[in-house]
Amino acid sequence: MSGLENAMVTIIEVFHKYSEKEGDKHKLKKSELKDLISNEFPAFSEQVKDQATMDSLMESLDADGDSECDFQEFMTFITMVTVCCHEFFEQHEDE
Amino acid sequence: MSGLENAMVTIIEVFHKYSEKEGDKHKLKKSELKDLISNEFPAFSEQVKDQATMDSLMESLDADGDSECDFQEFMTFITMVTVCCHEFFEQHEDE
Repeated sequence: MSGLENAMVTIIEVFHKYSEKEGDKHKLKKSELKDLISNEFPAFSEQVKDQATMDSLMESLDADGDSECDFQEFMTFITMVTVCCHEFFEQHEDE
Repeated sequence: MSGLENAMVTIIEVFHKYSEKEGDKHKLKKSELKDLISNEFPAFSEQVKDQATMDSLMESLDADGDSECDFQEFMTFITMVTVCCHEFFEQHEDE
């Protein structure tokens, strides 16, 4: 597999590692999303301890209003974070 | 870095590897997108040889109408492909 294919498989595997823990195994409930962010994005581990932050994040991702985060909604989150990282590096590079 | 952080860095690095080849180094022109898909998604290498397929793909990704694919538009492509892969594996798993 290419590096890019491996990256996509990693995203799918990480989603399932957390989504299958409780309830609907194809969706992340709020506590699963919180654990995923704490463990996989250590830089955000403090922020997700705040209940209001997690409520607001889940609300913004939950496009279909079922109070859970399905894979498509998770990809929106990954896109948001990756685009922010990319913009940071692009600005830094131009300095 | 976690596996998920590594995956996101890989996506950014692959985009830049191709976007910086010609013209605007922060955007993929059609030929750069074609090379990226041929090399990084070998399964699609035959499809992208067809000019009409590449025209149609670029048109569908090019949200701002500048005939190039910026990083945000590229993330739409990555999301499309990853969601399709995920749906395939999910259906396969339930069989």
